[in-house]
Amino acid sequence: MKIVDVTAQPFTYRSQIARDSEGHSHPVPEYDATECLVEISTDEGISGYCFGGHPVGAIRQVVKPMLVGEDPFYREKLWQKVKQAQRGSREVLSDRLIGVVDQALWDLAGRALGQPVYKLLGGARDKVPAYASTMCGDEVAGGLNTPEAYGEFAAQCRAEGYTAFKLHTWMPPIPWAPDPKRDVAACRAVRERVGDEMALMLDCFHHYSREEALYIGKELEKLDYHWFEEPMDEHNVSSYVWLTEQLSIPVLGPETAEGQMFTRAEWIVRGASDMSRGGVGDVGGITPLMKTAHLCESFGVRMEVHGGGPGNLHALCAMGIPGEYYERGLLHPFLDYEQRTPWLNSIVDPMDEAGCVHVSQQPGLGWDINFDFIRANAVTAPPG
Amino acid sequence: MKIVDVTAQPFTYRSQIARDSEGHSHPVPEYDATECLVEISTDEGISGYCFGGHPVGAIRQVVKPMLVGEDPFYREKLWQKVKQAQRGSREVLSDRLIGVVDQALWDLAGRALGQPVYKLLGGARDKVPAYASTMCGDEVAGGLNTPEAYGEFAAQCRAEGYTAFKLHTWMPPIPWAPDPKRDVAACRAVRERVGDEMALMLDCFHHYSREEALYIGKELEKLDYHWFEEPMDEHNVSSYVWLTEQLSIPVLGPETAEGQMFTRAEWIVRGASDMSRGGVGDVGGITPLMKTAHLCESFGVRMEVHGGGPGNLHALCAMGIPGEYYERGLLHPFLDYEQRTPWLNSIVDPMDEAGCVHVSQQPGLGWDINFDFIRANAVTAPPG
Repeated sequence: MKIVDVTAQPFTYRSQIARDSEGHSHPVPEYDATECLVEISTDEGISGYCFGGHPVGAIRQVVKPMLVGEDPFYREKLWQKVKQAQRGSREVLSDRLIGVVDQALWDLAGRALGQPVYKLLGGARDKVPAYASTMCGDEVAGGLNTPEAYGEFAAQCRAEGYTAFKLHTWMPPIPWAPDPKRDVAACRAVRERVGDEMALMLDCFHHYSREEALYIGKELEKLDYHWFEEPMDEHNVSSYVWLTEQLSIPVLGPETAEGQMFTRAEWIVRGASDMSRGGVGDVGGITPLMKTAHLCESFGVRMEVHGGGPGNLHALCAMGIPGEYYERGLLHPFLDYEQRTPWLNSIVDPMDEAGCVHVSQQPGLGWDINFDFIRANAVTAPPG
Repeated sequence: MKIVDVTAQPFTYRSQIARDSEGHSHPVPEYDATECLVEISTDEGISGYCFGGHPVGAIRQVVKPMLVGEDPFYREKLWQKVKQAQRGSREVLSDRLIGVVDQALWDLAGRALGQPVYKLLGGARDKVPAYASTMCGDEVAGGLNTPEAYGEFAAQCRAEGYTAFKLHTWMPPIPWAPDPKRDVAACRAVRERVGDEMALMLDCFHHYSREEALYIGKELEKLDYHWFEEPMDEHNVSSYVWLTEQLSIPVLGPETAEGQMFTRAEWIVRGASDMSRGGVGDVGGITPLMKTAHLCESFGVRMEVHGGGPGNLHALCAMGIPGEYYERGLLHPFLDYEQRTPWLNSIVDPMDEAGCVHVSQQPGLGWDINFDFIRANAVTAPPG
């Protein structure tokens, strides 16, 4: 089997989510947003798919020439090839982009063989407990504007089945944010509201000082929080070593730091966190995410998977170690999570009443793609 | 798909290889030896196979009850299950045995899906350079009885296509062995005989002192050897740290040390070797061998695969990092390597004129099993 084409088809859809000036997502009035379907097609008529793939020029001009003519089952060779090409082209070949390519290759293999990806990898389980992962705080009444609002939202998520809840708190460009004391107040309000019924985590402002991070961490310990995520710039590994030494609450990271499994290896050796972290978008696909999981397993270190979507879910279902939770979100009281992907006929991460997300048993990644929707909303103008 | 049976069928064959009192293989007059075929069968009529599986009682009484009723595609779950059961049952659930089970599960998946295992893993290449790996030294004229005999055998291997050659030298129970100076003499004789045409490696007596190992290593550096393997007991990690610090020749290990990928992780952190090592028999299958490769890749450490056979070959063809060589052997001037497996219609590791071994493109591990031979030579008496 040979790859004959790699395409990126942008399409519009009505969205209620947009990013603020600092890149954080919030609810907004409905508008036309853009998504992109990447398709890797073969001479045997079988294709693999993944959503994402921005900028589409990178797919068309950089990735396609690297893949056409190759055997799509040579995922390791192809991942190494695009990874090595990142060196001179990081501005287009981001880890997120090569992760989309790798996921499309896994989807293709699963479709070709009639198996869900997690079983190709070697299955470990078919469902994973999910945590409700909130959007960042805001200043909107009824939203996530007060500590008590987080508490109410946690209770609402508990009622929907979630057994765990993670706060993203207030961040710039909110003028008075960040505020360590207000972060702690929100964490306290959630614990007081839901009692011991939920595991709770905090992912706060990512650029706190050492002292601010230590203060928050100590307070989270008193509140019996489950983990503490990325309170400082992850490029300063020494600060994480310093923090991890002083806290008993598990510090989780690195998440957004560049360097794929190599960086996770260095963090383990340095003792820069208690639990490692990565998702298909952070490390560049399922292939390196499994490498990261295998690295962590070799050191007896837990790895929590960052972000949702089928690539992360299939990886979680093939890991021999926790990944304890699937990240479901980002959630907000104003938004219906299950209505966000009109380009799919069904969502990728259905949750049962016990708060567990079930992996698709369909071939590949289990995308249930609404091709009519994508055709009807295709952006035909040449994209940037 | 569910596993319905796990069987171990011993059978006899005529062999010219036997172990001495220290466990080292040598040529002997032909006699009846025993091999064992492990079969994992499913309710859909598809089976996976692997040879090995001693003692058969462990397969029948310990492994079978753990596997029957399980989905054979849940390799990660099943590997964790048998690995955890090792704790109280190491005397039967050796890493070699659980490696046979894991390989049979990979073979099953490949047969079920019509794909060679290395493509399920994600292919990186379809051939690997081989090194001729000798048996240990002996005292038989025409065998491996003198330094010059090693030199002649290396030249013969070069003529057959091999581009690399690894000596196993003289070991007990030979009364005067081991002898560091004679090991070095053999290494020198090989280098002088083949010149720069071959990469050369030494795997000598495994219980030398620090000083003996350092002496040999320094001499190998002068002879431009490619790596230096297991000259000391691998349980003494500090000795390997000491040796690796003082030698420029790459020290390779651990190989036979227990502890799967966990032990390799500790060696990397300790700096106990330059290159890591493992094979399906050492770490318990393809599943943990790939974990070990991913661990090593995360640290930029090379991993050379120990031993031959299709499990190791498929792993090598799915690794994104070297594995530079496939170990072909053990070889001896008296023996025809390709005649050793009469239970197969064709050998698992055919080598081309350039000295590269090609991975099978047949489904699964590519065993070309002669079931008639196995039936005709089946051992029906209850084994121990």
